[in-house]
Amino acid sequence: MEKIKIGSVGIGRLGYEHACNIATKVPGAQLAALCATKEEKLKRVAAELGVPDTYTDFEEMCRNPDLDAICIVSPSALHTKHIALALQHGKHVFCDKPLGTTVEQCKEAEKAVEAHPDKIFMLGFMRRYDISYRKAKEKIDRGDIGRIILVRSYTQEPIATIESALEFAPHSGGQFLDMCVHDIDTCRWFINSEPQNMWGIGGCFEFEQYRQWNDGDNVCCMLQFEDETMAFFFAGRAAAHGCNVETEIIGTRGTLRIGSVGTDSLLEVLNEHGVCRECYPDFMSRWHDAYIAEMIEFVQCIRENRKPEVSVYDGTAVSEIAYRCKESFETGKMLAAKSEQNSLR
Amino acid sequence: MEKIKIGSVGIGRLGYEHACNIATKVPGAQLAALCATKEEKLKRVAAELGVPDTYTDFEEMCRNPDLDAICIVSPSALHTKHIALALQHGKHVFCDKPLGTTVEQCKEAEKAVEAHPDKIFMLGFMRRYDISYRKAKEKIDRGDIGRIILVRSYTQEPIATIESALEFAPHSGGQFLDMCVHDIDTCRWFINSEPQNMWGIGGCFEFEQYRQWNDGDNVCCMLQFEDETMAFFFAGRAAAHGCNVETEIIGTRGTLRIGSVGTDSLLEVLNEHGVCRECYPDFMSRWHDAYIAEMIEFVQCIRENRKPEVSVYDGTAVSEIAYRCKESFETGKMLAAKSEQNSLR
Amino acid sequence: MEKIKIGSVGIGRLGYEHACNIATKVPGAQLAALCATKEEKLKRVAAELGVPDTYTDFEEMCRNPDLDAICIVSPSALHTKHIALALQHGKHVFCDKPLGTTVEQCKEAEKAVEAHPDKIFMLGFMRRYDISYRKAKEKIDRGDIGRIILVRSYTQEPIATIESALEFAPHSGGQFLDMCVHDIDTCRWFINSEPQNMWGIGGCFEFEQYRQWNDGDNVCCMLQFEDETMAFFFAGRAAAHGCNVETEIIGTRGTLRIGSVGTDSLLEVLNEHGVCRECYPDFMSRWHDAYIAEMIEFVQCIRENRKPEVSVYDGTAVSEIAYRCKESFETGKMLAAKSEQNSLR
Amino acid sequence: MEKIKIGSVGIGRLGYEHACNIATKVPGAQLAALCATKEEKLKRVAAELGVPDTYTDFEEMCRNPDLDAICIVSPSALHTKHIALALQHGKHVFCDKPLGTTVEQCKEAEKAVEAHPDKIFMLGFMRRYDISYRKAKEKIDRGDIGRIILVRSYTQEPIATIESALEFAPHSGGQFLDMCVHDIDTCRWFINSEPQNMWGIGGCFEFEQYRQWNDGDNVCCMLQFEDETMAFFFAGRAAAHGCNVETEIIGTRGTLRIGSVGTDSLLEVLNEHGVCRECYPDFMSRWHDAYIAEMIEFVQCIRENRKPEVSVYDGTAVSEIAYRCKESFETGKMLAAKSEQNSLR
Repeated sequence: MEKIKIGSVGIGRLGYEHACNIATKVPGAQLAALCATKEEKLKRVAAELGVPDTYTDFEEMCRNPDLDAICIVSPSALHTKHIALALQHGKHVFCDKPLGTTVEQCKEAEKAVEAHPDKIFMLGFMRRYDISYRKAKEKIDRGDIGRIILVRSYTQEPIATIESALEFAPHSGGQFLDMCVHDIDTCRWFINSEPQNMWGIGGCFEFEQYRQWNDGDNVCCMLQFEDETMAFFFAGRAAAHGCNVETEIIGTRGTLRIGSVGTDSLLEVLNEHGVCRECYPDFMSRWHDAYIAEMIEFVQCIRENRKPEVSVYDGTAVSEIAYRCKESFETGKMLAAKSEQNSLR
Repeated sequence: MEKIKIGSVGIGRLGYEHACNIATKVPGAQLAALCATKEEKLKRVAAELGVPDTYTDFEEMCRNPDLDAICIVSPSALHTKHIALALQHGKHVFCDKPLGTTVEQCKEAEKAVEAHPDKIFMLGFMRRYDISYRKAKEKIDRGDIGRIILVRSYTQEPIATIESALEFAPHSGGQFLDMCVHDIDTCRWFINSEPQNMWGIGGCFEFEQYRQWNDGDNVCCMLQFEDETMAFFFAGRAAAHGCNVETEIIGTRGTLRIGSVGTDSLLEVLNEHGVCRECYPDFMSRWHDAYIAEMIEFVQCIRENRKPEVSVYDGTAVSEIAYRCKESFETGKMLAAKSEQNSLR
Repeated sequence: MEKIKIGSVGIGRLGYEHACNIATKVPGAQLAALCATKEEKLKRVAAELGVPDTYTDFEEMCRNPDLDAICIVSPSALHTKHIALALQHGKHVFCDKPLGTTVEQCKEAEKAVEAHPDKIFMLGFMRRYDISYRKAKEKIDRGDIGRIILVRSYTQEPIATIESALEFAPHSGGQFLDMCVHDIDTCRWFINSEPQNMWGIGGCFEFEQYRQWNDGDNVCCMLQFEDETMAFFFAGRAAAHGCNVETEIIGTRGTLRIGSVGTDSLLEVLNEHGVCRECYPDFMSRWHDAYIAEMIEFVQCIRENRKPEVSVYDGTAVSEIAYRCKESFETGKMLAAKSEQNSLR
Repeated sequence: MEKIKIGSVGIGRLGYEHACNIATKVPGAQLAALCATKEEKLKRVAAELGVPDTYTDFEEMCRNPDLDAICIVSPSALHTKHIALALQHGKHVFCDKPLGTTVEQCKEAEKAVEAHPDKIFMLGFMRRYDISYRKAKEKIDRGDIGRIILVRSYTQEPIATIESALEFAPHSGGQFLDMCVHDIDTCRWFINSEPQNMWGIGGCFEFEQYRQWNDGDNVCCMLQFEDETMAFFFAGRAAAHGCNVETEIIGTRGTLRIGSVGTDSLLEVLNEHGVCRECYPDFMSRWHDAYIAEMIEFVQCIRENRKPEVSVYDGTAVSEIAYRCKESFETGKMLAAKSEQNSLR
């Protein structure tokens, strides 16, 4: 069986993670090319992972006829452009979130994907490939918890990473765009309905810097969906206890809780602080297995010529919702989802 | 040391609980009189608890010169009237929540209390006397968790009690008034600020009956306080797992979780369902100790001529907020707290 | 309904607890007399609890014809003597554990109890009245967990109390007699069989002082019962995390865990140590409710002329087993329970 | 960098797991050959995993000069023979536990390993490569919990696998040899001392069949080590709640608990059974990551010419202890470890 040859762009923290996974943890895949602007680091990573070809120009990599697929982990602002280029050169595309940094970009991405219906396009909402989220989804679909009443979802980054978060802040699009998108995605996945109204709030509780970007260090959003289902999101940048992502789905027949609070092993420590479980130190350790699982799924989809669960339209829908949350937060008003834009699918 | 002689009105479920507690579990207190309209049941309960005097007329009980204090567990609509009467007859007053069923009634209660500054008045927000809530409050006041970012509070009644809930529904004032008031109270207690904006939503997820009362079987509310602190409340009538009240206080230095999810003992059951802890079957078992603790505090306050922590103004403030949540839910709009009415204290 | 008038001997830590409970938390009971050798403290406690009569001589208190019952919380070495005296004077008797400090004493206590079959005698194995243990017992008796395979039971005192433990050590009878008796009692209660073989081990892991008393600061014992059921006990004097008593009952159909690890409230603290629950600070806070419950049961038994679940023979059986564990530990040998002495009922 | 070429023998459940891992999850490794007696299944697995060479004769595979290493997952009785053969042919060896089925075989394995000091030999005690066990080990070595007092370790297989367990029983060596060896291994690893005395007990609580093999369906063992440290093991074949392996290390300064009780995801289910976490369904899901981690370590050791943590002597020591436990169980006597045989290292 021929290996699927993948070229990957981006060797930042997450880019490196994806590159490693493709190179060593995805059966049937081969990391055949690597693209990045920092040439020295590029050479080093390529050597470490045994990658034969390296590029500093993305389109050049796309021209390589040996490559079957492209993995995009470039800066968010380049995602839409890279998606279009890769598809034009006949490659399957895996793109890490977000689809784009504006709704317009997302729409462009939709067009590019629609223009190449024979190509596999997958968006990197890795939570859907986490074992706990998958089990929850199964139980929901099986009717175990009845009708969904409320989805509550937290995304908390640890205080340990606040400095890099602040550095990245001007380009992140803000907490709703950068963090809540994951909560929005899994929420839509679980609920199967679209938000009707939403209200975003937040504040600078410790890091006043966020005010300059019209943002808060901690934000919340409450939404009501078209079918009355409710949702509540909380995103925080500086949790004392570590990286905490938890999602609760309250239904009429039962409730599911994912990671309340998630811990990085089965270890409990009993000492003068009581009975303690240690949290995940960062999102990379929390989602490591999910990052591998989503890439395995991407490769499987290519092999079996099958559409992944996460579509390009999900990417647009999630972005639209996140932007409306941000708008609500900025204007201080409860907003209706723009119905004319929301007619996705 | 003379016992504090208390007359109690109401022998419904909670009235009986308070009567039992005063009679047998509050050191230095004596249940000296009992008042109710159902005469037969009144006699039975009085005999069981060894109460010498019984009344079917509330004011008559208040005229009994031997009584030091009155405990009010009558129907909510009568609370304000009973408070005023008891104070007029020179009694200390413990009144179970709510203070009144309208904000106007609350204001009247304020006046009655202000007219008798030498009398102890205590409102029954029992959560403040629960050991877990008290410990949380201590830690917050000590600065353990830094500045509060978000308070999340759930009040879920078990499916087992849905029938009595439906029966009581037309007179309950709705979920915001009947259930969320406790969340609002503890939230204000923890935060020490007043809500600025709020949005209430909800739906009938299983019990369509609630629509006729302009209510939902499950409701949510998000609030932002004047100091930017955020809050999220969820109240549900029919939880599959039992009575669940949980409160989370997320701060800049740490987070506190009370009862996530509370269980009624230290017992875990490991069987084909996995590792299971059983929830409280109802609110009475959840708050039994707190009901005793608040009554002990009331008696202590009388003895030491000391004002209880929960004031009549807290009662009004909580009611105003609950009414605004309800209004927001009914109108579908995010609302600002009416500042002119909110100038409490 | 006449109150049951109780005279209590002993005002040490546990004696005071029992006195308070009888005085204020046991419906239908009255603390009518108090006996202790330290006269000044005796007067103070009596005043605080409103006890009319005080005694420095135990027999004199027993002669008080107004008293219905005697609560014995005197030094362990006096238990048997006090039991006999109280019964001779026609009183019902509640005696805190142990029944006696030697098996011979226990046998004497049996004779005293047998000589007064019309009197209620209850031994204070309070764990049986703890809500978690009661629920476990119910489930076991209902067959929920099938046949019992193994009972594991820990009794850990917190490091905070090591100094008083060391002070008390020369008179405590050692860890097996002082601590494991509770584990032995609940184990026999759950299993309904008698131990056949046992092996006790231990060591001085931090406090070498225990060696002089032929004891360890931490000890273990494994037992096999006549019906093949197995048991494992662990007792430790200096747990870093607080007072921890946990019991696990592994059955063929399910497993029950009581307090794994028990915490003193529903509060969780999330901070730099992870997700932490705080343990009980001491045994008094752990068993407070059980101490009340057992006294309520004692008073109920008197009223209803009903034998309590815990008999004098249980006291002897538990002591015999504890002594054999100690002997095994001291001799380093696995021992069979002495069958000739073990023929209890 | 050249890939390490591995030939693997055995395609049973665990053999297949190791083969898959080497083929797809161990960076720098290649599954170059596969050996098994069932030819048809062998061909199928080889095709699935893309293995070029297959063998039905083990020695023939060892003669393949392209292979760097051999992974042994053959029936336990063949382990020693296969170790010797592979080493004789100049291969590095990974052998799944046990080292041999008798202490004599273990000694032979020692000799074979000693005769090839330049070859890497690693024994598959995978628990040492589980993240929770590793973190515990780190904390112990760092002194976080002070001196170890007691190690308690459970190995429970789920009722779901009882049929295959019964089938395998006549050849398994019994619970002490088949299950407790893992507990013995991690215990020695944590404690760094050797057992002095031990007593094994057990019974047939549901499956009488085990009596014919001088075994129980559930067994316990208590040990005291030379330095006074204590240990308690429990092994059960038919747990209602799933596969449960938990280890507790009680120290003078703190306690560590691994998997109390382990669950297979971060998901909690709240329904009519309470708050439930689901257990691992089987040992394969529990140890999947550890199986990969140990193989990665094996390959790293080859590359870096470094001895793995688990030595051949650990294999012998563990077997000796397990055999003594079994002997104690069969004779009903507490036994001392045979000191003359125990002089390992």
